[in-house]
Amino acid sequence: MAVLIKGATFASGKKCDVLIESNKIAKIAPSITARAEEKIDAHGKLLLPGFINTHTHTGMSILRGIGDDLQLHDWLWKKVRPAEQKICELDMHAASLLSCAEMVRSGTTCFNDMYFHMKGVAAAVKESGMRATLGYGMVDLGDEKKRKSELAIGEQFIKEFDGSANGRIKCSVAPHAPYTCSAELLRASAALAKKHKTRLHIHLSETRKEVFDMLKQTKMRPVDYLASLGVLSPNTIAAHCVWLTKQEVGTLAKHGTHVSYNPVSNMKLASGGAAPIPEMLEAGVNVTLGTDGVASNNSHSMFECMKIGALLQKQSRWDAQAVNAKQALQFATLNGARALGINAGEIKEGKLADIILLDMRAPNMQPVRSMESNVVYSAHAGNVTDAIIDGKLVMRNHKILTFDEEKAIDAVQKAADRITVT
Amino acid sequence: MAVLIKGATFASGKKCDVLIESNKIAKIAPSITARAEEKIDAHGKLLLPGFINTHTHTGMSILRGIGDDLQLHDWLWKKVRPAEQKICELDMHAASLLSCAEMVRSGTTCFNDMYFHMKGVAAAVKESGMRATLGYGMVDLGDEKKRKSELAIGEQFIKEFDGSANGRIKCSVAPHAPYTCSAELLRASAALAKKHKTRLHIHLSETRKEVFDMLKQTKMRPVDYLASLGVLSPNTIAAHCVWLTKQEVGTLAKHGTHVSYNPVSNMKLASGGAAPIPEMLEAGVNVTLGTDGVASNNSHSMFECMKIGALLQKQSRWDAQAVNAKQALQFATLNGARALGINAGEIKEGKLADIILLDMRAPNMQPVRSMESNVVYSAHAGNVTDAIIDGKLVMRNHKILTFDEEKAIDAVQKAADRITVT
Repeated sequence: MAVLIKGATFASGKKCDVLIESNKIAKIAPSITARAEEKIDAHGKLLLPGFINTHTHTGMSILRGIGDDLQLHDWLWKKVRPAEQKICELDMHAASLLSCAEMVRSGTTCFNDMYFHMKGVAAAVKESGMRATLGYGMVDLGDEKKRKSELAIGEQFIKEFDGSANGRIKCSVAPHAPYTCSAELLRASAALAKKHKTRLHIHLSETRKEVFDMLKQTKMRPVDYLASLGVLSPNTIAAHCVWLTKQEVGTLAKHGTHVSYNPVSNMKLASGGAAPIPEMLEAGVNVTLGTDGVASNNSHSMFECMKIGALLQKQSRWDAQAVNAKQALQFATLNGARALGINAGEIKEGKLADIILLDMRAPNMQPVRSMESNVVYSAHAGNVTDAIIDGKLVMRNHKILTFDEEKAIDAVQKAADRITVT
Repeated sequence: MAVLIKGATFASGKKCDVLIESNKIAKIAPSITARAEEKIDAHGKLLLPGFINTHTHTGMSILRGIGDDLQLHDWLWKKVRPAEQKICELDMHAASLLSCAEMVRSGTTCFNDMYFHMKGVAAAVKESGMRATLGYGMVDLGDEKKRKSELAIGEQFIKEFDGSANGRIKCSVAPHAPYTCSAELLRASAALAKKHKTRLHIHLSETRKEVFDMLKQTKMRPVDYLASLGVLSPNTIAAHCVWLTKQEVGTLAKHGTHVSYNPVSNMKLASGGAAPIPEMLEAGVNVTLGTDGVASNNSHSMFECMKIGALLQKQSRWDAQAVNAKQALQFATLNGARALGINAGEIKEGKLADIILLDMRAPNMQPVRSMESNVVYSAHAGNVTDAIIDGKLVMRNHKILTFDEEKAIDAVQKAADRITVT
């Protein structure tokens, strides 16, 4: 199938036509005449690579608003965990589908997910037309039997789903965190990722407590601990990375490990501090952006992540130049693609056709001095009009084409009522 | 004119009909049958009081993106001030109209503005159907001649526009800041506000530099200095208030002065620190929210202000309970109305009919556990479908009814190209 986009404005300000053939960007030129099953008039619209959200738990949309304004410990143990016990695979499918709707509507075309009942998530990805890297979140808390069963579930999921949905689904190995996984599970995870040539997705140094607990237990800080177990590599995506020393930043850079910066979640859960993004950039770490799950954000908007991610750095450094609009936009696009190892994140011939269009004529997008500035500091999810993923139209003129949102919404509200713990 | 809203959901979760007669909420009941020129089917929609933005410079939309990611000093003196010199009254009208479009689209029904060429702003308010408190921003930098002319312009504007547009426009006395206005101008401003029974709108303690300069010059901190000049009263709205001691917070409370918290602008300009909102609440200060001008935000979205305003407090205090969703929503509605002295900010019979509707069925607004949480942490401007101001429909189904947005956009882009300083 071919899609022809006419008269779109690029972030550079240039106007071009874009021809999509199969799932790739086939041609970019000032004027293209070609046969195409779909033609999109993009005059007055800004064309961008779709956003890549590198840390999600999409099934958590079912928990939206469940433990707001609570300390992390109460949020987790009194609200989130008890509700999670009641979530079944069907709930997970509906919740992930709801998240897909929210993500597409806010310009995200690809996400990196870790949770449980991942078959439900995979089904939602397949149905929605999105692109995703999915991993079963493994936790053993030092229990050997549990470790074996977790690894078995994790590997089975990879065997069944890696490369599925025409390659839109890739799988990862996803040990939850250094403090919930034994050293053996972390080592085995690294080996499993190597064996299946997948990404490894893990939480890292989200809170100060985690760092000090780790120091007590292992005499190492979390990054050094993971490095000692062979977990850090260019295939690793580490989420959060708030509480790092400069030396740990250097270790991440040395191993080529990708960082998923989650500013909104970190601020909402009051993790304290701010991830040392300027130091990461200086050391050459590939910085990307994640929303985290909706229970701790409570939104999947990458617009919020870009803006708040830049603002948090400026605010905590007293430096208005820390993280600029261009950098924030790159975190959300090209850097995300690099982290996940997908041929996307920029608008170039030969790249995957994961593309969004934004209404440049919306009053909040005017006047235009810098497209990047307006996208990062002024835009919101409602400005996204169209989304193309893997060469297929997933949203056109604010209408999702691939699945029934209303059905997903009703299913999630019903399940949410059932699982809420009061 | 009467407007009948059928089947709206309130923030409490209750469903009601709302009858608007003339410019007031006449009746709220589970089912109302009445003759009405306009009927709105609000099933699946959340009905809220419109947001009240208590610190804006709406004309600054013409400067959107002009000095991003720059330190405040460079931003102000190299980018903003030179461009401002070239703005004429017609530009101001177009820019304010653009801001009105952006504000209505993001759920704001009333704003508190201070800038220059204020006749252009008043014309935009009149045309757009919005409600506003407008003041000419006076600056004398110690020059007596200038002081007299500034006071004359400020008073003339009040005489001409206070109570105009059927009472939708109120005027304020707006001395810019303690560091740009002489003690004489500040005293005269307080007297002028008393004489005309208007609000007094001023910037206060935005940066640390301001505090230390003031200490050097007057041996007083800014709040104490304003108190000594008689500037603080229950008619005063002080914007920013970032760098306050606890004792200064007490002084604001004692005088009944209202605070406009501007979290996005403060973070973007890297003012450092965070306004002591929990202390203000404890002391009984009326806390409201402002976006500030678009050149330092770069958006008029009160959704962003509510969310980022809560997140910044949580983050800087390491306390997830600091400022909850209910409080943030109240800052943006009822507290704003109190600050401006208008009979709005809540949905009650007898209140002014300044009302917005939000699409509750949008995926980012589902599931619903707490309406307040979803509005503050999950919603975005694109979720606002309808706006009624002073009893009149200003936006219906995302369409602005009162003026031509496209015309304003074209005029602003043209003017922006002319005034940009490179």
